[in-house]
Amino acid sequence: MQVGVIGTGSIASWFIQAARLVEDVEFVAVYSRAQATGDKFAQDNRIDKVYTDLEKMLKDNDVEAVYIASPNSLHFDHAKLALEHNKHVLIEKPFTGNFDRAKELVALAQSKSLFLFETICNIHMPHMDYIKNRIQELGQLRMIQCNYSQYSSRYDALLSGKTPNVFNPKMSGGALMDLNIYNLHFTMYLFGKPESIHYFANQHENGIDTSGILILDYGEFKATLTGAKDSASYNVGQIQGETGHITIPNGVNGLETVILTTDDTKKEVVEQDKPRLYYQVAVFKDMVDNNDFELRDFYLEHSLNVVEVATEALRQIGLEFEY
Amino acid sequence: MQVGVIGTGSIASWFIQAARLVEDVEFVAVYSRAQATGDKFAQDNRIDKVYTDLEKMLKDNDVEAVYIASPNSLHFDHAKLALEHNKHVLIEKPFTGNFDRAKELVALAQSKSLFLFETICNIHMPHMDYIKNRIQELGQLRMIQCNYSQYSSRYDALLSGKTPNVFNPKMSGGALMDLNIYNLHFTMYLFGKPESIHYFANQHENGIDTSGILILDYGEFKATLTGAKDSASYNVGQIQGETGHITIPNGVNGLETVILTTDDTKKEVVEQDKPRLYYQVAVFKDMVDNNDFELRDFYLEHSLNVVEVATEALRQIGLEFEY
Repeated sequence: MQVGVIGTGSIASWFIQAARLVEDVEFVAVYSRAQATGDKFAQDNRIDKVYTDLEKMLKDNDVEAVYIASPNSLHFDHAKLALEHNKHVLIEKPFTGNFDRAKELVALAQSKSLFLFETICNIHMPHMDYIKNRIQELGQLRMIQCNYSQYSSRYDALLSGKTPNVFNPKMSGGALMDLNIYNLHFTMYLFGKPESIHYFANQHENGIDTSGILILDYGEFKATLTGAKDSASYNVGQIQGETGHITIPNGVNGLETVILTTDDTKKEVVEQDKPRLYYQVAVFKDMVDNNDFELRDFYLEHSLNVVEVATEALRQIGLEFEY
Repeated sequence: MQVGVIGTGSIASWFIQAARLVEDVEFVAVYSRAQATGDKFAQDNRIDKVYTDLEKMLKDNDVEAVYIASPNSLHFDHAKLALEHNKHVLIEKPFTGNFDRAKELVALAQSKSLFLFETICNIHMPHMDYIKNRIQELGQLRMIQCNYSQYSSRYDALLSGKTPNVFNPKMSGGALMDLNIYNLHFTMYLFGKPESIHYFANQHENGIDTSGILILDYGEFKATLTGAKDSASYNVGQIQGETGHITIPNGVNGLETVILTTDDTKKEVVEQDKPRLYYQVAVFKDMVDNNDFELRDFYLEHSLNVVEVATEALRQIGLEFEY
């Protein structure tokens, strides 16, 4: 599979590095608005072609799929344009910042029998399967707790009066979309849509959530998901049931380790032997190779559910992202 | 100071053991409804006198103060009776399960110039002072996270159709009152009354909260406090600010260790060299010795604030404790 890259940030480089470990995944082109940025990125990542016109890259027959790592608010336009040019699409998380836009993308991919996929690494990791397979040992679930707090290097700029992209409401950033989204994917991948949600956020004067607590109420159990870009913490994920609990040190974004504790045992599991961004690409590659539209729709439905909850959470604090 | 004990549970024994390390604190009597239980407790804890009639113990001139470790719902009646008999009173947490009752006790103690005090160990520990003194290093606060989840040995009984005291709404128990109360004391001792609160609970069919998430909104920052008696977790407390964070491994109920992380340093602090129940007794003893009514009222106001928030939280889930 020959992939073109949209976006030249460090996430794109990390992604390429991990994705190249998947057999037959090649990166053949990169798009950047600025030639110099594109050239530098292409050189650093051993990519042959640089485009400064996105449509030209999308007309390149060597490009079968695009990986979109542009700012959040451009995910929709870039994905739509790529699908219109009959390319398969991997969108970096968050899928979109608006539920209606997400549905539009999904409908477009489905109508054209193209593969569309959100690259949210944690739900595709081996530990996710491990948890899914062992969760019944926890008995009736009661409490999920996840936090991902990481001080953003751009937060200094925000405090000094600037508006970096990740804290710009017009750019679909903020703590929920950028960090808590990992906790949300983790929880909703395991348990689906909650019965109700409540979002409590610290908001900058421009409205963006710099940190927040998202409560998901599943009736018989509840989840409290914390994400912060304005402060740091020791991160940890937990799933608590009546007969045992699972602890994920360092948080559910990386899913590095799983500790399963039941009445008789405490077991530490490390099944991840590849870079964390690898697994999602392997899933996507297999899916495309096998023309597995059922799996595509399974993951797309999950992404839609996540965007729906995130959109509603943001609405509760007065934020509505256009894209 | 000569103390009479009301209640013969294991918390009373632990309390006595720790309190005896405070100079001139002696335990001279115990009250139990059952003679055999009282005798056994007196023998185990080297106490001379056993009463099965509470009023008789309260008329004993050797008893200057009483320590109340009866079931939560009896705290009010026992404290009131003791104050009426001109005894100083230490009430095991929770102070009461009802704000009006709490105010009544405080007014009674104040009108009689008696000492009334809630024995909630964590706010009196050396680490609490340490945190209070260093918290400005964290900059503008953003997020507090505390959880205390401990599977209750009585929960099995509840699941099998019985109603043990701690899960009986008539006995003022539940996850908020029994465990999350530590998180609440910790947070409110540092930051006072929040602007608003929200309680999300898992409730047994009898209405009692077996676990729950209490959100305290302080405007510029938020706290998410989790307590569970129906499931366990790795417990941890965190205070997150823009320039650093404090992590409290194993939770803020014990306050065993404090880890202070700022841009340049990560420092682990262990200042607690006595049993965790010791410090509160030392505070109380000093207060009485020095006739320090100002300090009494400082702590009583704090306890009243905590009961007020807890009462409101329970009201939100349809629970109203009479005592």
